[in-house]
Parts: sequence; structure tokens; C-alpha cells
Amino acid sequence: MSDEERFDADLLVDFTAAVLSAVGVPDHDARLAGEVLSASDVRGIDSHGVARLPAYVTGVEQGKINPTPELKVVHETPSTATVDGDNGLGLVIGPKANDIAMDKAAGAGTGWVAVRRSNHYGIAGYYVLQAIERDLIGWSMTNASAIAAPLWGAQPRFGTNPIAVGFPAAEEDPVVIDMATTVVAHGKMEIAMRKGTDVPDGWAIDAEGNPTNDAYAVFRGGALLPLGGDHEHGGHKGYALAGLVDLLTGPLAGAGWGPFTPSFVPDTENVDEARGVGIGHFFGAMRVDAFGDAAVIKGRFDDWVRTMRATTPQPGRTVLVPGDPEREAEADRRANGVPLVAQVAQALRDLGERFGIGL
Amino acid sequence: MSDEERFDADLLVDFTAAVLSAVGVPDHDARLAGEVLSASDVRGIDSHGVARLPAYVTGVEQGKINPTPELKVVHETPSTATVDGDNGLGLVIGPKANDIAMDKAAGAGTGWVAVRRSNHYGIAGYYVLQAIERDLIGWSMTNASAIAAPLWGAQPRFGTNPIAVGFPAAEEDPVVIDMATTVVAHGKMEIAMRKGTDVPDGWAIDAEGNPTNDAYAVFRGGALLPLGGDHEHGGHKGYALAGLVDLLTGPLAGAGWGPFTPSFVPDTENVDEARGVGIGHFFGAMRVDAFGDAAVIKGRFDDWVRTMRATTPQPGRTVLVPGDPEREAEADRRANGVPLVAQVAQALRDLGERFGIGL
Repeated sequence: MSDEERFDADLLVDFTAAVLSAVGVPDHDARLAGEVLSASDVRGIDSHGVARLPAYVTGVEQGKINPTPELKVVHETPSTATVDGDNGLGLVIGPKANDIAMDKAAGAGTGWVAVRRSNHYGIAGYYVLQAIERDLIGWSMTNASAIAAPLWGAQPRFGTNPIAVGFPAAEEDPVVIDMATTVVAHGKMEIAMRKGTDVPDGWAIDAEGNPTNDAYAVFRGGALLPLGGDHEHGGHKGYALAGLVDLLTGPLAGAGWGPFTPSFVPDTENVDEARGVGIGHFFGAMRVDAFGDAAVIKGRFDDWVRTMRATTPQPGRTVLVPGDPEREAEADRRANGVPLVAQVAQALRDLGERFGIGL
Repeated sequence: MSDEERFDADLLVDFTAAVLSAVGVPDHDARLAGEVLSASDVRGIDSHGVARLPAYVTGVEQGKINPTPELKVVHETPSTATVDGDNGLGLVIGPKANDIAMDKAAGAGTGWVAVRRSNHYGIAGYYVLQAIERDLIGWSMTNASAIAAPLWGAQPRFGTNPIAVGFPAAEEDPVVIDMATTVVAHGKMEIAMRKGTDVPDGWAIDAEGNPTNDAYAVFRGGALLPLGGDHEHGGHKGYALAGLVDLLTGPLAGAGWGPFTPSFVPDTENVDEARGVGIGHFFGAMRVDAFGDAAVIKGRFDDWVRTMRATTPQPGRTVLVPGDPEREAEADRRANGVPLVAQVAQALRDLGERFGIGL
């Protein structure tokens, strides 16, 4: 695209931190949030990066996001904790809850943390990358407002409910799984709408529950389909995975779930507490050396990565390892900067100007 | 089908136990194995039930399965254990390893057990049903010999690598997810071959990696496709899930993995230990009350089940909850008996006759 501009990733962290500080987020938390957002941009998941900063700022300014939350552990065992995020930024509550999971793992071998009263936490993959740095197998899931139907349903009941899991290797790249449990994520529909093109069979249904190729249908009462699509291709499995994420991120900690999951920035009034509060997350951390010698196990993960890459490919293809596309994006963006479309760059500059912060 | 005969489920347990005892499996273990196999038949997953008993018996008689294994915990932390199954029946090693996970959860909040040197363990769902009875969220995964390709690969690199996760509710049915990470499991291809019909688009590739509708192609060097199918429909996600199961069940404990996963009954000679020993499993158990008041959380799971069932359906459809099809099969089979096709019934009678055990 020609109407884009590239920005240094660290500059985007600084900018985000400065803007969030300006609306009352403590410096350390503001920088943390900037790092989470920037990680998304750097890894090529533009929809979850700094483009969303204005929405977070609005949430704080409208009193829906608490800039100075007191994160509370409301329940715990040696390997688990339930966290109340006090309406703080998901970008701050998420990393702190993930830290608790990783600290639990140090003591008990594994750590598992369910979070309520949070909001959008960036990309699921960020959290497992943190775990990988500490020789942990990391897990991260979040729910989101409903846009996907269960198999045979004609109503949205789930968000795109991503699952991320990361495995640290010794010499090879880590395996970094980070996937929505729908056939496609939200962003692919938005791209089709912008381009005015149809979407492929098997992505979506309209408001009556019929298959559609119209990207707009999803935003007019239709829904995305769960991974697998129809029953013949395993749509019940995608539904089950979306449900797995929903049950672990919602009811376990008392966050919103299914159709009761609040939107990006939760409305903090008129909450039906019986159906949960805020967006929910679920984090896991498993020490590699909780299962044996870490060097030996990581060596086996190396062997796994090499073996998968060496698979005989389909004609003209290459077999990748989960995490490769994001690594490729990161190499480009670290070297050449993060591309932001003109509209996003302008929105950020407008935002910065209000606080006297340049970009 | 007319050429089938129905058998009482408990009778199949007794028969299996008697046959396995006759080849040297201790009575308690033989009964346990019978219960695991029968659970598969009762839940409608005929491919994993007593139809496989002759193969297990052959494994024991050929010295490839150890009828009197000494299961060893070779590594552990408060919430984890690594188990060596000593080439025992997967139907015996599986439940015992799952017990260890559940016992760990009692102490640490959660328990996670990786298993090596095992063999086929029946249906993944059996283990999470055990967990549900103890108010645990149960996890169960296994690898299997390679028959599925990674996205863009033209070689089998994974088994159908199932994931099962179960959530106990208070008044409603539990949520029981039990799914292969391929578009379809093995059995669907076998049915198409028996019927001489084509399989739908998106299920399989031939030996060159090209899409095929020929069920035989998979058994002539082709492969099943991972859940999602092609890239446009999320095949990279199914590949990632198959990889997740493979990494947790194989390299973590030192079991076989990927293309090095042994077949149903592993060859116990000529093993390349660096690539792992035997089939591997992974079990998890999370105490519901490790995250809060169990009655409250299970009440939320009830609400979740009711809400999903109440989803407005597509025309002529009903929205199910994961576990419903198996529950329906169970209701029928508990009342009317387990249907076995004539060929299977005869094979079992022939087997029983050798040991003077009637069916």
C-alpha cells in the first residue's frame, strides 16, 4: 500500500507510554501497555496494535477503564490464582496476571491464572513469548464480544476467542501458536468490506443462519463460523474450541462469557454480576524442567521444529512452523519500521497533539 | 445396519476383562482396561472399543505389550509428573497416569502428567469423564501414528492427535469436548472405503499433496488434512493444534512424536530412543474450587450450557453442547445394548473360544 508510513517500533512504545501517562496511567504501567501494543504491530497483527490506542484513551477518559487499578488475587492454590483486574487496562492487567502464573510455576511446576474485570489485552501471543523467555511453556486465552456462532446456531455467541501456546526450543525458533478459534478473525472481514469483495464460502452466515459471501452480513446480525466451518468439515470442533476458551476465560473467574462478554471497553454500569464482570483472560505457565531435564526436552523441541520444516511440501509450497509468519513480519518491521496506514497515523498524531506529544 | 448384534455393555467389560486376564494381565488391570474399551463403545465411538481387543491381545502375545508393567514416576513437581508406562497397555497406564494428575490437583490445585512408553489408550474422552466425577476440569491428549499432514505438507507427520477437555456442571450435563485435530478422524475414511464412495473436498490429499476425493489415497501415501483444511479456511490452525498435542504428548515425556510416533502397538525393538519411546499421552486436572467457590462456578457452567442450547438455530437445526452426541449414543446403548457388526462379534467370539470364554 502506498498510503502508509513506517514508524520505529520503540518510538511507538514511547508514544503510547507518553499518551497513557498523560491520561493518568502510572509510568511503569503505561510503558508496559506500550510494549504489549507494539508487540502486536511488530508481529504483523496490525488490528491489535497502536491503532487501538485512541479507543483505550477514550475508555480511560470516559471512566470505563481505571488508570490506577488495584489488581487483587481473590482466590488461590499453589498452582492457581483468580485475579480481579479492577477495570484496569487489559494491557496492564494481562501482563501482571501472566507474571503471577509464571511465578506460581516457579514454585509448583505450573501456574494457571483466570482473570475477571479486565478489558482487551492485545494479542494472545505476547504472553506466551514472555513465558518462553523464562523457559516456560506459556498459555494465553481471552474472550471477546460475541461475533461467532456455535455450529448450527444463527446467533453470535462467542468472540473470536483466541488460544496461544508457546514452546521454547534450544537452538531453533520457539513454536508460537496464536490463533482465533473462528475460521477467520475479524480483520479479514473488515479487509473484504474495505475492498468491496466477497468472502469465500465457509467463513460466515447471515442473520438467518444461511451461508453467505457478503462480508457485511456479519455486521448485520450474521456471524463468523467456528474453525472447521460446517459440520462436514468439523465446525463442531471449532465450536468446541471456542467454548473451551469461553469457559476458561469467563465463568471460571466470573468474567463475562458467551453473549454476555462485554465489548472492547466494557460498560462498567448496568452489569449483571451473575453473568460476570468485564472481559476475561486465562494464562498458563508450565516449567519445561517440571517434566524432565530442560536441555534434553528443549533439544527434542529443536528436533521437532527441524523435522516439520523438512516435511516434503505440496508443489510450490513450504511447510512452516507455528510462529514463522509473525517472525517474518518482525524481522521486516524491526529493520524497516512498523507500517501504519495514513488514517491510523493521522489519528495517533491527532491524539498526541491533544497532550503535546509528537509522533 | 441389519448385520449387527447388540451386547450388554457390562457383558463386554466382563468379556474383555476375562480375555485380558487369560493372557496374563492382573485382574484389576484387566477390568480397568475393559471399562475403558467399553466406554468407547457405549459412547458411540465404535472404532476405539472392543473391536480393538484382538489387536491388544496380539500385542501381549507377541511380547510388545507388557501385561504386568511397573509404572514409574520418573520426574515430578507439586503439580506435574512424568510417567514411564513400561510398555503396559495404554488402557491401564492411561487411567493410572490420569489418577496421578487428579491426585496432584488435590494437593496443588492442578495436576499435569506426561506419559511415555505407552500404547493406544482408548478414547480421550474417557479420562475427562473420570475427572468430571471428581469436580475437576479434565484434560486428555494422545498422539498416534502419522496419518495427517501439516498445512502445505505432502507427507503424514501427525496422528489424528485428539484433545479432550471436560467441565463439570451442577445441574446440567457436563461439557465434554473430545475431538481429533484433523478435519475428520480415521474412521470416516474407512467408512467411505467400505461403501466405495468419494469423500468431500477438504478432507484429504494424495501422495503428491494434491486435494483428493479418493478415500484410498490416504492409505496410499496421502494424508488427512488438519482441521480447517486449506489455508483459506484455517488449515494452519488445525496444524497448530495437532502440533500442540504432539509437543505435549511426545517430546515432553520422551515418547515418540510426529513421524516417529509408533503404531497402535509399538515395536519395542529397534527403537531410536533419541526420538522417543512408545506412544505418549498428556493428562491435566484442574480443581474447580482452585479458582473460587465450586458451587458458584458450576452454577455458571449450568448457565453456559442452557444459554448455548437456547441459541436461535439455523433453519431445521438444533444447537448442541459438546458431549451431546455421545450422551445420546450412551442413552441408546445403555438401554438397548452396544451394536457390534457381525464381523467384530465373530472375531471376539473366536478370540474368546481360544480361552474358553463365551460371549
